[in-house]
Amino acid sequence: MSMSRGSNGAERLVVIGGDAAGMSAASQARRLKGPDELEIVAFERGHFTSYSACGIPYWVGGDVSDRDELIARTPQEHRARDIDLRLRTEVTEIDVEKGGVRARDVDSGEESWTPYDKLVIATGARPIRPDLPGIDALGVHGVQTLDDGQDLLDTLTSARGRRAVVVGAGYIGVEMAEALINRGFEVTVVNRGREPMSTLDPDMGRLVHRAMEGLGITMVNDAEVTKLHMGEDGRVRAVATADAEYPADVVVLGIGVHPETALAKAAGLPLGEHGGLLTDLAMRVRGHENIWAGGDCVEVLDLVSGRERHIALGTHANKHGQIIGANVGGGYATFPGVVGTAVSKVCDLEIARTGLREKDARRAGLQFETVTIESTSRARYYPSASPMTVKMLAERRTGRLLGVQIVGREGAGKRVDIAAVALTAGMTVEQMTALDLGYAPPFSPVWDPVLVAARKAAAAVRNKTP
Amino acid sequence: MSMSRGSNGAERLVVIGGDAAGMSAASQARRLKGPDELEIVAFERGHFTSYSACGIPYWVGGDVSDRDELIARTPQEHRARDIDLRLRTEVTEIDVEKGGVRARDVDSGEESWTPYDKLVIATGARPIRPDLPGIDALGVHGVQTLDDGQDLLDTLTSARGRRAVVVGAGYIGVEMAEALINRGFEVTVVNRGREPMSTLDPDMGRLVHRAMEGLGITMVNDAEVTKLHMGEDGRVRAVATADAEYPADVVVLGIGVHPETALAKAAGLPLGEHGGLLTDLAMRVRGHENIWAGGDCVEVLDLVSGRERHIALGTHANKHGQIIGANVGGGYATFPGVVGTAVSKVCDLEIARTGLREKDARRAGLQFETVTIESTSRARYYPSASPMTVKMLAERRTGRLLGVQIVGREGAGKRVDIAAVALTAGMTVEQMTALDLGYAPPFSPVWDPVLVAARKAAAAVRNKTP
Repeated sequence: MSMSRGSNGAERLVVIGGDAAGMSAASQARRLKGPDELEIVAFERGHFTSYSACGIPYWVGGDVSDRDELIARTPQEHRARDIDLRLRTEVTEIDVEKGGVRARDVDSGEESWTPYDKLVIATGARPIRPDLPGIDALGVHGVQTLDDGQDLLDTLTSARGRRAVVVGAGYIGVEMAEALINRGFEVTVVNRGREPMSTLDPDMGRLVHRAMEGLGITMVNDAEVTKLHMGEDGRVRAVATADAEYPADVVVLGIGVHPETALAKAAGLPLGEHGGLLTDLAMRVRGHENIWAGGDCVEVLDLVSGRERHIALGTHANKHGQIIGANVGGGYATFPGVVGTAVSKVCDLEIARTGLREKDARRAGLQFETVTIESTSRARYYPSASPMTVKMLAERRTGRLLGVQIVGREGAGKRVDIAAVALTAGMTVEQMTALDLGYAPPFSPVWDPVLVAARKAAAAVRNKTP
Repeated sequence: MSMSRGSNGAERLVVIGGDAAGMSAASQARRLKGPDELEIVAFERGHFTSYSACGIPYWVGGDVSDRDELIARTPQEHRARDIDLRLRTEVTEIDVEKGGVRARDVDSGEESWTPYDKLVIATGARPIRPDLPGIDALGVHGVQTLDDGQDLLDTLTSARGRRAVVVGAGYIGVEMAEALINRGFEVTVVNRGREPMSTLDPDMGRLVHRAMEGLGITMVNDAEVTKLHMGEDGRVRAVATADAEYPADVVVLGIGVHPETALAKAAGLPLGEHGGLLTDLAMRVRGHENIWAGGDCVEVLDLVSGRERHIALGTHANKHGQIIGANVGGGYATFPGVVGTAVSKVCDLEIARTGLREKDARRAGLQFETVTIESTSRARYYPSASPMTVKMLAERRTGRLLGVQIVGREGAGKRVDIAAVALTAGMTVEQMTALDLGYAPPFSPVWDPVLVAARKAAAAVRNKTP
């Protein structure tokens, strides 16, 4: 064991990144060990800590009135718990051999060296910003940080027209489309894929497509942005694809994110095929006894395919933080992996998925049956029962559930949790047909939509089994 | 094997009871075997088939405008599928030795004898109607059948006052309280138990109590009805308990049901401690190769306690019917049991439970930890996030999930499905903390309420384990 680096004989924990994973880890470690045992230094290059990046679209859209509502714990609150939090301080180097980090004060440029006994890397993700002509025009915004959100809101307020173009039709794209509609903009979504929501199979994405059009959103699929036109004032004017041009007073980039692992890479830490840090089940960086990593900068095990994936999602980051904090604090906890659950909405349309899409299953070498059913959120005769489409994939022969996708209105999204738990438990679709789910007419038809899908999937598996 | 009883060499299936279990069995058997192979005769003593008894409170309350909306499949539709359906015909005897049933035409009184090769008993449940003075007064109603619902609606229309008393505070009681409020009645609920919803622990029932009072419902607990006062016109006037008298223009009995197994008992078929028929996993009556039973007249295996229970619920009845139909039709299907999931609502209050209450767990010989947490249906900062209380029971040492109870507003009820699947899979609360549930601010806090409860329960189990 290395000698203690902290003052007064305490060990020192250094945390890189002040959002969900990093500060959850710091808080949990602090809960388990007081300042006399563990000194905690946390570096954050921005102004904020522990905020909900997932909430930014709702703040931009006006559902959340104040930025501060998105902040779960302020710097002051962290400091009050004896966490030495250094804002606006960017870590520029990790020296794994010496056990220390070099950091730079963003404002003064001053550099410092901080040794650690234990290190937590929670550097998050970086939004993809394609290298296109005009990408730096005024009025072109990402929505990754609270600062991004404020910049976008300022643009919306000052925009001369009401035309918005969203580039990308994943979760961020569709959520921002809703936000912009709520702000009174005319919205065009330009999407590289065949259908929006590429986390769904295209047949389910097609339902999202239709619903978005029904909401007055112009959906342009199979379209790659080639250029952004800028006016003489430096503001964006239009988004160009190979085939067309879409006038724009504001452009929002919702293309996705990459793990932010430049530091980790330079330090020689192990990265996976998606560019994320690789950890063991206790969230320890592989091969490094005293370094942990979690949140948007790591890859996670997909329990269904058995492969590593990169998923940037606050709920995983919070879990990672808790687990890292427990381990750093002398306890024991592990993160078994994910099944790939995600929910989203655009206006009153709810979109959910868990497990494998058809192409994921094929890539994993699986053969499978797929079924799609229509049902309703409540008993058909109950007021406001709304239609819901459920697609289910089950493995051939074994009948093991592989994935579920749901598109519908109120009550559709969170039904995916049934499938998320069933996937985690390795259930077959035949087993699922007997699930004792909550039934009463205001909550579900007598056969819950997920059960209807399971019955059809089980029949498909049986019919293919000689 | 017995000789075929049907015409033209076909086997004959006799079904007793024309609601969910019986007619699902008949329909599924018909799907698998045509009329040349299987003759199907179904006896129903009422006027209707395949209707949603669970929907009656919503019809009475006015959410469902027309009785016929509650009918999933009419007698005509069944007959069109070659099911010989005999309405208003009550089976009065099962002769297991001879393999036949005696039936009586309710209107003409005429009796007939019908031999069977295979028999399905789906006689349902009988509402408890306590033997009290005045119980037969006009204006005192059960709500078990469509005819009951129509009678109650007639009373509501003709009632001279607007005072309603509901006897019983289980699902039917609270749902009827809502229905009567919707019809403009002043509602008093008289309840024998300490708190309403005895399917919850009293601490959770207390939350329902408070919410019902908030809705303007007068809740009287610990009160046993002793008498119903009748006016000279034969109409109910008041409900009396040992301590008080509650004026009433209409009284609704929602005390619960018993399995309707008088016929089965007389035939010497095996009944359990709750008075329901006992079956094997294929829903065959134990010890009887050619008799099946399902729906509200059977006992089901509780997978958590390992004991038989009686649960009258449409969703189980439908599953039983499907399974019986598959087996009768020459296929193979089983019903593994239940975990005891139920959801209900009274106005905007949602109430859900699955698994064991504290007293069930004690009765099963289990030691356990209980935790209760407060959370919200959506991210706290998202509009219309509403509070939710989740109680969780976990076994000592093993940490196995034993039960969950949830009381809250929109989004609370169906969250119980997460626990229902976890119970079925035999998960521990520690395993549940890692569940990959759908997260986005409009759908859930970053830690879903069920995960918050699981974390607290896991900590409680750890802290008690030496």
